Amino acid sequence: MEKFKFIKDEKLKNQIKFVMVIDEMKNIFRRNLIIDGSRRENDAEHSWHLAMLAMILEEYSAEKIDLERVLKIALVHDLIEVYAGDTFAYDEKGYEDKEEREKQAADKLFGMLDSTQGAEIRALWDEFEAMETAESRYANAIDRIQPLILNYMTNGHTWKLGDVHSTQIYKRMDIIRTATPELWHIVEGIINTSIEIGILKP
Amino acid sequence: MEKFKFIKDEKLKNQIKFVMVIDEMKNIFRRNLIIDGSRRENDAEHSWHLAMLAMILEEYSAEKIDLERVLKIALVHDLIEVYAGDTFAYDEKGYEDKEEREKQAADKLFGMLDSTQGAEIRALWDEFEAMETAESRYANAIDRIQPLILNYMTNGHTWKLGDVHSTQIYKRMDIIRTATPELWHIVEGIINTSIEIGILKP
Repeated sequence: MEKFKFIKDEKLKNQIKFVMVIDEMKNIFRRNLIIDGSRRENDAEHSWHLAMLAMILEEYSAEKIDLERVLKIALVHDLIEVYAGDTFAYDEKGYEDKEEREKQAADKLFGMLDSTQGAEIRALWDEFEAMETAESRYANAIDRIQPLILNYMTNGHTWKLGDVHSTQIYKRMDIIRTATPELWHIVEGIINTSIEIGILKP
Repeated sequence: MEKFKFIKDEKLKNQIKFVMVIDEMKNIFRRNLIIDGSRRENDAEHSWHLAMLAMILEEYSAEKIDLERVLKIALVHDLIEVYAGDTFAYDEKGYEDKEEREKQAADKLFGMLDSTQGAEIRALWDEFEAMETAESRYANAIDRIQPLILNYMTNGHTWKLGDVHSTQIYKRMDIIRTATPELWHIVEGIINTSIEIGILKP
Protein backbone atom coordinates (compact mmCIF):
# COMPACT_ATOMS: atom_id res chain seq x y z
CA MET A 1 0.00 0.00 0.00
CA GLU A 2 3.02 2.22 -0.60
CA LYS A 3 1.03 3.85 -3.41
CA PHE A 4 -1.62 4.95 -0.92
CA LYS A 5 0.63 6.26 1.84
CA PHE A 6 -1.29 9.56 1.73
CA ILE A 7 -4.24 7.80 3.39
CA LYS A 8 -3.53 8.22 7.09
CA ASP A 9 -6.63 6.50 8.46
CA GLU A 10 -5.86 2.79 8.88
CA LYS A 11 -9.47 1.66 8.54
CA LEU A 12 -9.96 3.51 5.24
CA LYS A 13 -6.58 2.34 3.95
CA ASN A 14 -7.58 -1.28 4.60
CA GLN A 15 -10.93 -0.76 2.89
CA ILE A 16 -9.16 0.56 -0.21
CA LYS A 17 -6.76 -2.36 -0.07
CA PHE A 18 -9.71 -4.75 0.17
CA VAL A 19 -11.48 -3.33 -2.88
CA MET A 20 -8.21 -3.67 -4.82
CA VAL A 21 -7.60 -7.26 -3.72
CA ILE A 22 -11.09 -8.33 -4.82
CA ASP A 23 -10.39 -6.93 -8.30
CA GLU A 24 -8.88 -10.39 -8.77
CA MET A 25 -12.45 -11.74 -9.10
CA LYS A 26 -12.16 -10.54 -12.71
CA ASN A 27 -9.44 -13.15 -13.25
CA ILE A 28 -11.13 -16.14 -11.65
CA PHE A 29 -12.82 -18.12 -14.38
CA ARG A 30 -15.75 -20.44 -13.92
CA ARG A 31 -16.42 -23.54 -16.03
CA ASN A 32 -19.39 -22.10 -17.86
CA LEU A 33 -19.21 -19.83 -20.88
CA ILE A 34 -20.91 -16.45 -21.34
CA ILE A 35 -24.04 -16.65 -23.50
CA ASP A 36 -22.34 -15.92 -26.84
CA GLY A 37 -20.07 -18.91 -26.19
CA SER A 38 -16.87 -16.94 -26.82
CA ARG A 39 -15.13 -17.56 -23.48
CA ARG A 40 -15.53 -18.60 -19.86
CA GLU A 41 -17.36 -16.35 -17.43
CA ASN A 42 -15.44 -14.87 -14.52
CA ASP A 43 -16.55 -14.47 -10.91
CA ALA A 44 -17.06 -10.69 -11.09
CA GLU A 45 -19.36 -11.04 -14.10
CA HIS A 46 -21.20 -13.96 -12.53
CA SER A 47 -21.76 -12.03 -9.28
CA TRP A 48 -23.13 -9.03 -11.14
CA HIS A 49 -25.40 -11.20 -13.28
CA LEU A 50 -26.61 -13.09 -10.22
CA ALA A 51 -27.50 -9.82 -8.47
CA MET A 52 -29.36 -8.66 -11.59
CA LEU A 53 -31.36 -11.89 -11.81
CA ALA A 54 -32.14 -11.65 -8.09
CA MET A 55 -33.47 -8.14 -8.64
CA ILE A 56 -35.51 -8.97 -11.77
CA LEU A 57 -36.99 -12.23 -10.45
CA GLU A 58 -37.69 -11.11 -6.87
CA GLU A 59 -41.44 -11.69 -7.19
CA TYR A 60 -40.90 -15.45 -7.58
CA SER A 61 -39.38 -15.97 -4.14
CA ALA A 62 -41.71 -18.23 -2.17
CA GLU A 63 -40.75 -16.46 1.04
CA LYS A 64 -40.76 -12.75 1.83
CA ILE A 65 -37.20 -11.47 1.43
CA ASP A 66 -35.13 -8.40 2.25
CA LEU A 67 -33.76 -7.63 -1.21
CA GLU A 68 -30.93 -5.47 0.16
CA ARG A 69 -29.52 -8.49 1.99
CA VAL A 70 -30.05 -10.71 -1.06
CA LEU A 71 -28.08 -8.26 -3.23
CA LYS A 72 -25.26 -8.06 -0.67
CA ILE A 73 -25.15 -11.85 -0.49
CA ALA A 74 -25.04 -12.10 -4.29
CA LEU A 75 -22.19 -9.58 -4.50
CA VAL A 76 -20.01 -11.31 -1.89
CA HIS A 77 -20.97 -15.00 -2.20
CA ASP A 78 -17.91 -15.93 -4.29
CA LEU A 79 -15.39 -13.42 -2.89
CA ILE A 80 -13.39 -16.07 -1.04
CA GLU A 81 -12.47 -17.58 -4.43
CA VAL A 82 -9.93 -14.75 -4.68
CA TYR A 83 -7.86 -17.00 -2.40
CA ALA A 84 -9.59 -20.40 -2.66
CA GLY A 85 -10.23 -20.56 -6.43
CA ASP A 86 -13.39 -21.84 -8.09
CA THR A 87 -14.55 -25.41 -7.42
CA PHE A 88 -16.51 -26.93 -10.30
CA ALA A 89 -20.05 -27.71 -9.20
CA TYR A 90 -19.82 -31.32 -10.39
CA ASP A 91 -16.25 -32.00 -9.20
CA GLU A 92 -16.69 -34.45 -6.31
CA LYS A 93 -12.99 -34.58 -5.52
CA GLY A 94 -12.70 -30.78 -5.40
CA TYR A 95 -15.61 -30.70 -2.97
CA GLU A 96 -13.75 -32.90 -0.45
CA ASP A 97 -11.54 -30.10 0.86
CA LYS A 98 -13.66 -27.20 -0.41
CA GLU A 99 -14.96 -26.27 3.04
CA GLU A 100 -11.55 -26.14 4.69
CA ARG A 101 -9.94 -24.24 1.81
CA GLU A 102 -12.75 -21.72 1.75
CA LYS A 103 -12.74 -21.17 5.53
CA GLN A 104 -9.04 -20.33 5.43
CA ALA A 105 -9.58 -18.01 2.48
CA ALA A 106 -12.40 -16.28 4.36
CA ASP A 107 -10.19 -15.70 7.41
CA LYS A 108 -7.50 -14.16 5.25
CA LEU A 109 -9.79 -12.03 3.08
CA PHE A 110 -12.32 -10.73 5.58
CA GLY A 111 -9.55 -10.30 8.16
CA MET A 112 -8.23 -7.44 6.02
CA LEU A 113 -11.16 -5.26 7.08
CA ASP A 114 -11.69 -3.88 10.57
CA SER A 115 -13.35 -6.48 12.80
CA THR A 116 -16.90 -5.08 12.66
CA GLN A 117 -17.06 -4.76 8.90
CA GLY A 118 -15.10 -7.95 8.32
CA ALA A 119 -17.57 -9.87 10.52
CA GLU A 120 -20.50 -8.30 8.69
CA ILE A 121 -19.29 -9.38 5.25
CA ARG A 122 -18.29 -12.79 6.51
CA ALA A 123 -21.76 -13.26 8.01
CA LEU A 124 -23.27 -12.68 4.56
CA TRP A 125 -21.02 -15.36 3.10
CA ASP A 126 -21.78 -17.77 5.97
CA GLU A 127 -25.48 -17.08 5.51
CA PHE A 128 -25.30 -17.97 1.82
CA GLU A 129 -23.48 -21.22 2.56
CA ALA A 130 -25.77 -22.30 5.42
CA MET A 131 -29.02 -21.76 3.47
CA GLU A 132 -30.98 -21.28 6.68
CA THR A 133 -32.67 -17.96 5.86
CA ALA A 134 -35.22 -16.96 3.22
CA GLU A 135 -32.66 -14.60 1.65
CA SER A 136 -29.99 -17.27 1.30
CA ARG A 137 -32.42 -19.87 -0.03
CA TYR A 138 -33.56 -17.41 -2.69
CA ALA A 139 -29.97 -16.40 -3.51
CA ASN A 140 -28.97 -20.05 -3.83
CA ALA A 141 -31.91 -20.81 -6.11
CA ILE A 142 -30.93 -17.92 -8.39
CA ASP A 143 -27.28 -18.99 -8.18
CA ARG A 144 -28.38 -22.35 -9.65
CA ILE A 145 -30.60 -20.99 -12.38
CA GLN A 146 -28.09 -18.42 -13.71
CA PRO A 147 -25.48 -20.99 -14.86
CA LEU A 148 -28.26 -23.38 -15.94
CA ILE A 149 -29.46 -20.77 -18.45
CA LEU A 150 -25.90 -20.02 -19.59
CA ASN A 151 -25.16 -23.72 -20.05
CA TYR A 152 -28.35 -24.30 -21.96
CA MET A 153 -27.58 -21.35 -24.25
CA THR A 154 -24.06 -22.70 -24.92
CA ASN A 155 -25.08 -26.23 -25.91
CA GLY A 156 -24.47 -27.77 -22.50
CA HIS A 157 -20.81 -26.77 -22.40
CA THR A 158 -20.09 -27.62 -18.74
CA TRP A 159 -22.28 -30.73 -18.78
CA LYS A 160 -20.09 -32.15 -21.50
CA LEU A 161 -16.92 -31.13 -19.61
CA GLY A 162 -18.12 -32.85 -16.46
CA ASP A 163 -19.89 -35.77 -18.18
CA VAL A 164 -22.97 -34.69 -16.25
CA HIS A 165 -26.30 -36.58 -16.33
CA SER A 166 -29.75 -35.09 -15.86
CA THR A 167 -30.13 -36.71 -12.43
CA GLN A 168 -27.11 -34.76 -11.16
CA ILE A 169 -28.61 -31.54 -12.45
CA TYR A 170 -31.98 -32.26 -10.85
CA LYS A 171 -30.19 -32.84 -7.55
CA ARG A 172 -28.21 -29.62 -7.79
CA MET A 173 -31.27 -27.59 -8.83
CA ASP A 174 -33.50 -28.94 -6.04
CA ILE A 175 -33.46 -25.71 -4.00
CA ILE A 176 -35.29 -23.99 -6.89
CA ARG A 177 -38.29 -26.28 -6.35
CA THR A 178 -38.92 -24.88 -2.87
CA ALA A 179 -37.35 -21.39 -2.92
CA THR A 180 -38.79 -20.29 -6.29
CA PRO A 181 -41.44 -22.89 -7.22
CA GLU A 182 -42.77 -20.83 -10.15
CA LEU A 183 -39.35 -21.15 -11.79
CA TRP A 184 -39.18 -24.94 -11.44
CA HIS A 185 -40.80 -25.55 -14.84
CA ILE A 186 -37.85 -23.66 -16.40
CA VAL A 187 -35.49 -26.26 -14.90
CA GLU A 188 -37.65 -29.09 -16.24
CA GLY A 189 -38.05 -27.38 -19.61
CA ILE A 190 -34.31 -26.85 -19.99
CA ILE A 191 -33.43 -30.40 -18.94
CA ASN A 192 -36.10 -32.03 -21.12
CA THR A 193 -35.23 -29.94 -24.17
CA SER A 194 -31.51 -30.54 -23.64
CA ILE A 195 -32.01 -34.28 -23.58
CA GLU A 196 -34.26 -34.05 -26.65
CA ILE A 197 -31.71 -32.12 -28.70
CA GLY A 198 -28.87 -34.35 -27.50
CA ILE A 199 -26.77 -31.95 -25.45
CA LEU A 200 -27.44 -33.71 -22.13
CA LYS A 201 -27.44 -37.36 -21.10
CA PRO A 202 -30.73 -38.55 -19.54
CA MET B 1 -36.96 -17.22 -27.54
CA GLU B 2 -37.68 -20.46 -29.42
CA LYS B 3 -35.43 -22.20 -26.89
CA PHE B 4 -37.72 -21.14 -24.06
CA LYS B 5 -41.06 -21.97 -25.65
CA PHE B 6 -41.92 -24.09 -22.60
CA ILE B 7 -42.37 -20.85 -20.60
CA LYS B 8 -46.03 -20.00 -21.14
CA ASP B 9 -46.20 -16.85 -19.03
CA GLU B 10 -45.31 -13.85 -21.21
CA LYS B 11 -44.05 -11.72 -18.34
CA LEU B 12 -41.65 -14.39 -17.10
CA LYS B 13 -40.52 -15.18 -20.64
CA ASN B 14 -39.64 -11.51 -21.18
CA GLN B 15 -37.80 -11.38 -17.87
CA ILE B 16 -35.68 -14.37 -18.91
CA LYS B 17 -35.07 -12.75 -22.28
CA PHE B 18 -33.99 -9.55 -20.52
CA VAL B 19 -31.45 -11.29 -18.30
CA MET B 20 -30.03 -13.01 -21.39
CA VAL B 21 -29.79 -9.79 -23.40
CA ILE B 22 -27.88 -8.03 -20.61
CA ASP B 23 -25.31 -10.85 -20.63
CA GLU B 24 -23.80 -8.69 -23.37
CA MET B 25 -22.48 -6.36 -20.62
CA LYS B 26 -19.65 -8.92 -20.37
CA ASN B 27 -18.59 -7.95 -23.90
CA ILE B 28 -18.71 -4.17 -23.56
CA PHE B 29 -15.22 -2.98 -22.76
CA ARG B 30 -14.36 0.25 -21.00
CA ARG B 31 -11.19 2.25 -21.59
CA ASN B 32 -9.62 1.42 -18.26
CA LEU B 33 -7.72 -1.75 -17.47
CA ILE B 34 -8.31 -4.14 -14.57
CA ILE B 35 -5.80 -3.68 -11.74
CA ASP B 36 -3.25 -6.25 -12.94
CA GLY B 37 -3.05 -4.31 -16.23
CA SER B 38 -3.66 -7.41 -18.36
CA ARG B 39 -6.76 -6.22 -20.26
CA ARG B 40 -9.65 -3.76 -20.37
CA GLU B 41 -12.44 -3.99 -17.84
CA ASN B 42 -15.94 -4.78 -19.07
CA ASP B 43 -19.23 -3.26 -17.94
CA ALA B 44 -20.40 -6.31 -15.98
CA GLU B 45 -17.17 -6.38 -13.95
CA HIS B 46 -17.27 -2.62 -13.44
CA SER B 47 -20.87 -2.72 -12.22
CA TRP B 48 -20.08 -5.48 -9.74
CA HIS B 49 -16.98 -3.67 -8.49
CA LEU B 50 -18.91 -0.42 -8.17
CA ALA B 51 -21.60 -2.12 -6.09
CA MET B 52 -18.89 -3.66 -3.87
CA LEU B 53 -17.21 -0.29 -3.31
CA ALA B 54 -20.61 1.28 -2.57
CA MET B 55 -21.20 -1.40 0.06
CA ILE B 56 -17.74 -1.19 1.65
CA LEU B 57 -17.52 2.63 1.70
CA GLU B 58 -21.14 3.37 2.72
CA GLU B 59 -20.09 5.13 5.93
CA TYR B 60 -18.40 7.92 3.95
CA SER B 61 -21.58 9.16 2.30
CA ALA B 62 -22.22 12.73 3.50
CA GLU B 63 -25.96 12.13 3.28
CA LYS B 64 -28.06 9.34 4.75
CA ILE B 65 -28.66 6.79 1.99
CA ASP B 66 -30.86 3.78 1.31
CA LEU B 67 -28.18 1.24 0.41
CA GLU B 68 -30.64 -1.08 -1.36
CA ARG B 69 -31.40 1.66 -3.87
CA VAL B 70 -27.70 2.51 -4.23
CA LEU B 71 -26.91 -1.14 -5.02
CA LYS B 72 -29.73 -1.35 -7.56
CA ILE B 73 -28.51 1.88 -9.19
CA ALA B 74 -24.95 0.54 -9.33
CA LEU B 75 -26.10 -2.72 -10.93
CA VAL B 76 -28.17 -1.04 -13.66
CA HIS B 77 -26.39 2.29 -14.24
CA ASP B 78 -24.56 1.10 -17.38
CA LEU B 79 -27.15 -1.38 -18.73
CA ILE B 80 -28.14 0.82 -21.65
CA GLU B 81 -24.61 0.41 -23.01
CA VAL B 82 -25.78 -3.01 -24.23
CA TYR B 83 -27.33 -0.99 -27.05
CA ALA B 84 -25.57 2.41 -26.81
CA GLY B 85 -21.98 1.30 -26.23
CA ASP B 86 -19.52 2.87 -23.81
CA THR B 87 -18.66 6.57 -24.16
CA PHE B 88 -15.17 7.41 -22.93
CA ALA B 89 -15.38 9.85 -20.02
CA TYR B 90 -12.97 12.31 -21.63
CA ASP B 91 -14.32 12.05 -25.20
CA GLU B 92 -16.00 15.43 -25.80
CA LYS B 93 -17.21 14.49 -29.27
CA GLY B 94 -18.77 11.26 -28.05
CA TYR B 95 -20.62 13.19 -25.38
CA GLU B 96 -22.40 15.36 -27.99
CA ASP B 97 -24.96 12.71 -28.93
CA LYS B 98 -24.56 10.54 -25.82
CA GLU B 99 -27.88 11.61 -24.28
CA GLU B 100 -29.93 10.91 -27.41
CA ARG B 101 -28.21 7.57 -28.09
CA GLU B 102 -28.70 6.45 -24.51
CA LYS B 103 -32.36 7.49 -24.35
CA GLN B 104 -33.12 5.38 -27.42
CA ALA B 105 -31.20 2.46 -25.97
CA ALA B 106 -33.16 2.79 -22.71
CA ASP B 107 -36.50 2.70 -24.57
CA LYS B 108 -35.46 -0.46 -26.38
CA LEU B 109 -33.93 -2.26 -23.40
CA PHE B 110 -36.35 -1.41 -20.60
CA GLY B 111 -39.28 -1.78 -23.02
CA MET B 112 -38.56 -5.51 -23.05
CA LEU B 113 -39.92 -5.84 -19.52
CA ASP B 114 -43.56 -5.41 -18.54
CA SER B 115 -44.39 -1.74 -18.11
CA THR B 116 -44.28 -1.63 -14.29
CA GLN B 117 -40.94 -3.35 -13.94
CA GLY B 118 -39.50 -1.61 -16.99
CA ALA B 119 -40.43 1.77 -15.53
CA GLU B 120 -38.92 0.82 -12.19
CA ILE B 121 -35.54 -0.10 -13.67
CA ARG B 122 -35.57 2.90 -15.97
CA ALA B 123 -36.28 5.19 -13.00
CA LEU B 124 -33.10 3.88 -11.32
CA TRP B 125 -31.09 4.73 -14.43
CA ASP B 126 -32.72 8.16 -14.74
CA GLU B 127 -32.02 8.78 -11.06
CA PHE B 128 -28.33 7.98 -11.52
CA GLU B 129 -28.08 10.33 -14.49
CA ALA B 130 -29.96 13.23 -12.86
CA MET B 131 -27.90 13.21 -9.63
CA GLU B 132 -30.74 14.81 -7.69
CA THR B 133 -30.97 12.31 -4.82
CA ALA B 134 -28.56 11.38 -2.04
CA GLU B 135 -28.36 7.82 -3.42
CA SER B 136 -27.45 8.94 -6.93
CA ARG B 137 -24.91 11.50 -5.70
CA TYR B 138 -23.21 8.80 -3.64
CA ALA B 139 -23.36 6.29 -6.53
CA ASN B 140 -21.86 8.85 -8.89
CA ALA B 141 -19.05 9.67 -6.45
CA ILE B 142 -18.18 5.98 -6.16
CA ASP B 143 -18.49 5.59 -9.95
CA ARG B 144 -15.74 8.24 -10.23
CA ILE B 145 -13.42 6.83 -7.61
CA GLN B 146 -13.52 3.23 -8.88
CA PRO B 147 -11.89 3.94 -12.28
CA LEU B 148 -9.61 6.55 -10.65
CA ILE B 149 -8.11 3.81 -8.47
CA LEU B 150 -7.85 1.39 -11.42
CA ASN B 151 -6.16 4.04 -13.57
CA TYR B 152 -3.73 4.94 -10.83
CA MET B 153 -2.84 1.28 -10.34
CA THR B 154 -2.23 0.83 -14.08
CA ASN B 155 0.14 3.78 -14.54
CA GLY B 156 -2.51 6.22 -15.75
CA HIS B 157 -3.50 4.07 -18.72
CA THR B 158 -6.64 5.96 -19.79
CA TRP B 159 -5.14 9.38 -19.00
CA LYS B 160 -2.44 8.67 -21.54
CA LEU B 161 -5.00 7.38 -24.08
CA GLY B 162 -7.06 10.56 -23.74
CA ASP B 163 -4.13 12.95 -23.22
CA VAL B 164 -5.86 13.96 -20.00
CA HIS B 165 -4.61 16.75 -17.70
CA SER B 166 -5.11 16.98 -13.95
CA THR B 167 -7.61 19.85 -14.30
CA GLN B 168 -9.94 17.60 -16.30
CA ILE B 169 -9.73 14.93 -13.63
CA TYR B 170 -10.44 17.42 -10.84
CA LYS B 171 -13.51 18.57 -12.75
CA ARG B 172 -14.76 15.03 -13.30
CA MET B 173 -14.12 14.05 -9.68
CA ASP B 174 -15.87 17.10 -8.20
CA ILE B 175 -18.94 15.18 -7.00
CA ILE B 176 -16.66 13.27 -4.59
CA ARG B 177 -15.88 16.55 -2.75
CA THR B 178 -19.50 16.97 -1.68
CA ALA B 179 -20.98 13.45 -1.74
CA THR B 180 -18.09 11.71 0.07
CA PRO B 181 -15.89 14.50 1.49
CA GLU B 182 -13.78 12.11 3.59
CA LEU B 183 -12.64 10.45 0.35
CA TRP B 184 -11.57 13.69 -1.32
CA HIS B 185 -8.00 13.45 -0.03
CA ILE B 186 -7.69 10.17 -1.94
CA VAL B 187 -8.45 12.06 -5.16
CA GLU B 188 -5.84 14.71 -4.28
CA GLY B 189 -3.33 12.09 -3.19
CA ILE B 190 -3.73 10.09 -6.40
CA ILE B 191 -3.50 13.17 -8.64
CA ASN B 192 -0.51 14.65 -6.79
CA THR B 193 1.39 11.36 -6.70
CA SER B 194 0.59 10.67 -10.37
CA ILE B 195 2.01 14.05 -11.40
CA GLU B 196 5.07 13.45 -9.19
CA ILE B 197 5.86 10.08 -10.73
CA GLY B 198 5.18 11.38 -14.24
CA ILE B 199 2.11 9.38 -15.25
CA LEU B 200 -0.18 12.44 -15.40
CA LYS B 201 0.21 15.94 -16.85
CA PRO B 202 -0.27 18.75 -14.32
